[in-house]
Amino acid sequence: MNKNVVVAQSGGPSPVINSSLRGVVETCLEMPDRFGTVYAGYHGIEGVLREELLDISAQSREEIALLSVTPAAGAIGTCRYKLKPDQAEDFDRVIEVFRAHNVGYFFYNGGNDSMDTAHKVAQLAAERGLDLVAVGVPKTIDNDVGDSEFKLIDHTPGYGSVARLWALMVQGAEEENRGSSPADPVLVLQAMGRRIGYIPAAARLADPERQMPLLIVLAESGIEMPELADRVNDMVKKRGRAVVVVSEGLELGDLGETRDSFGHVQFSASRTTVASMVVNYLNDHGLPVQGSARSNVPGTHQRHDIAYASTVDLAEAYAVGQKAALLAAEGESGYMATILREPGDIYSVRYDKVPLEQVANSERTFPAEWITEDRTDVTDDFLRYARPLIGEGWPSIPMVDGLQRFTRFEPLFAEQKLIKYVPQGLR
Amino acid sequence: MNKNVVVAQSGGPSPVINSSLRGVVETCLEMPDRFGTVYAGYHGIEGVLREELLDISAQSREEIALLSVTPAAGAIGTCRYKLKPDQAEDFDRVIEVFRAHNVGYFFYNGGNDSMDTAHKVAQLAAERGLDLVAVGVPKTIDNDVGDSEFKLIDHTPGYGSVARLWALMVQGAEEENRGSSPADPVLVLQAMGRRIGYIPAAARLADPERQMPLLIVLAESGIEMPELADRVNDMVKKRGRAVVVVSEGLELGDLGETRDSFGHVQFSASRTTVASMVVNYLNDHGLPVQGSARSNVPGTHQRHDIAYASTVDLAEAYAVGQKAALLAAEGESGYMATILREPGDIYSVRYDKVPLEQVANSERTFPAEWITEDRTDVTDDFLRYARPLIGEGWPSIPMVDGLQRFTRFEPLFAEQKLIKYVPQGLR
Repeated sequence: MNKNVVVAQSGGPSPVINSSLRGVVETCLEMPDRFGTVYAGYHGIEGVLREELLDISAQSREEIALLSVTPAAGAIGTCRYKLKPDQAEDFDRVIEVFRAHNVGYFFYNGGNDSMDTAHKVAQLAAERGLDLVAVGVPKTIDNDVGDSEFKLIDHTPGYGSVARLWALMVQGAEEENRGSSPADPVLVLQAMGRRIGYIPAAARLADPERQMPLLIVLAESGIEMPELADRVNDMVKKRGRAVVVVSEGLELGDLGETRDSFGHVQFSASRTTVASMVVNYLNDHGLPVQGSARSNVPGTHQRHDIAYASTVDLAEAYAVGQKAALLAAEGESGYMATILREPGDIYSVRYDKVPLEQVANSERTFPAEWITEDRTDVTDDFLRYARPLIGEGWPSIPMVDGLQRFTRFEPLFAEQKLIKYVPQGLR
Repeated sequence: MNKNVVVAQSGGPSPVINSSLRGVVETCLEMPDRFGTVYAGYHGIEGVLREELLDISAQSREEIALLSVTPAAGAIGTCRYKLKPDQAEDFDRVIEVFRAHNVGYFFYNGGNDSMDTAHKVAQLAAERGLDLVAVGVPKTIDNDVGDSEFKLIDHTPGYGSVARLWALMVQGAEEENRGSSPADPVLVLQAMGRRIGYIPAAARLADPERQMPLLIVLAESGIEMPELADRVNDMVKKRGRAVVVVSEGLELGDLGETRDSFGHVQFSASRTTVASMVVNYLNDHGLPVQGSARSNVPGTHQRHDIAYASTVDLAEAYAVGQKAALLAAEGESGYMATILREPGDIYSVRYDKVPLEQVANSERTFPAEWITEDRTDVTDDFLRYARPLIGEGWPSIPMVDGLQRFTRFEPLFAEQKLIKYVPQGLR
């Protein structure tokens, strides 16, 4: 009897996370000689711990296909719960659940932390004599998976779509700011990405020729509030107005931080936002023209907007999920499926594998040489890197009665065979 | 010699404001026996006062056609400057500029305040013996033009598009919230519309069957913070999570208000946002589950997103601009072109005229009977009103090299014939 499959997601979702899920699922379903039933850990590893396994094989193929145009993690859920090394009971429970449901394949979709978890689960399974193939699937809008040299992965699925949203959203913001100045001369836009600058950097894609009065302030810029205000006011003096993109992780003072269970600051739950701090400072200290500064904080919209998704990103997200399934079919355990860019002027990628352990022990930062000397812009090298990722046109989103038609899975779960379990970190 | 045309915009723009501009311009250009050169007041009435008249007739027809897919007011600019009744010099100057440039037609695109201005300009022109046809063109995403009985206008161009953005954005937010709970159980979304609830109400279009854990809190609900928190926590207890749409104008305490020159509160320039206040209160007082509340403040994006624009709204915005030009061609001065809904189950509208004076002296409020008894939802009557306005599918946005192709007018201005003038309110 073929071994069954568990696929699970972790952390903040992306507009294309379900495209990777679809890639994994459809590829497994195409190989019935290799893979048994495909289950999803409902709400990530928490669902595995609770033995809540959504039966994906029992869902209609149409709903599975719709995953590609369904943003965020509503289809199978995600979680912020982390399997910590000292929580041995949790690891034991995962093995127990996998054994009970004859699971031989585990796909874990997430960032560096999740690759670490997948790696540890694979190790433990081997120690316990459980024949388990564990494969990672990369994901994050922040583009902070892998290493800074892009050797482990060129970019993560999800980034191309949020980059496209920023490129096109800033085009609109420029129309607004140009049209509404001098009454509303300063528009501040706050980008996600914690303390890593790939998302705010993507604003430059809106204006590769640098014609807009656009300032881009990454968390990595190290700019403090008075200097930032000077830059903005200089731009307003010169151009009459300014569009200012700031990273949510810019350190301008005490935001009143809230942390998630990974220990990461949850900027969207902070008491105040970077955008508010910038706007209040500018308004308090006076703009060089009449009018006031205002701000937008798109927040989670960056993770769940499918209309602006990049067609390149959607296709790659699918393909890397498919690659993960193909690796699993070959028995290649302990790897993350990855996207590597081919050399040459024409953008192309190949799908490959990198050891989970290497990803787990890596950290990616935004290349310092991609920040301009004045620290309020990014370089053309960044544009050359990011431009292909946003593609050319719009994705096609199916509509029913004026609304988007998203995947709706039936609540068909695997029969529970074990005693109830509360994850260690939630007791 | 035919009289020339001036068209100008006022106040906050919308995604389809330029569609109305295109309707006015193309219709005038089709009637060269009636209309002379078409000028735009560059940045609204301020541009008229400064004698900055952008020559639209001299622009390429392609750029004029692209207005339909160009959001916000970047093409010809808008302003928040108001001609106040006691600023006689300003009124005199408008007449002087019109006379100097042989202007016989004045189109003013805006809300109730702007219709008042257009009306006063028309009156003054008549007093001074200037043969001027003044016609208003309605606009506002807030849908607060006209009267509460929908007799003067059924809805304003701009509202259908922001309503569609909210319908589809809330669909995405539901995917995010469902997928990310219980870690992130509460997502608060702040809607524009000042103290009038049409925009937040549109969130209900995402979920006409009321299956989502969605709370919609209009400014008109009169709910105060502790009660709002109770409602949210009740929902979280019942459903494990909540998506909460709040009006930017909800009175929850001191926001640190900034006012524009119309005397309106500028919520986006306030020291804090309603969304932050709600999130902080919920996090301070504890949610019934683990995790924290977070918020999105899309802000001006609601005025400059063209991807989500309603195809119905785009077509109506054009048609009402066209109607304004046709009224002018017939010499019908002192009217606003309007959109009236035909009776019957099938949605259809007709374009008509209503006296500017009537619009100027009207106020529209959100019908109290469309707010549910529990004050955290809107009724099916609202849905029947709003549903046709969002249309069925996606607009087609032309792309060049991965970016949206917006109108770019050449800076061709009418030769200045008068001495420099600084608007009275800006001295």
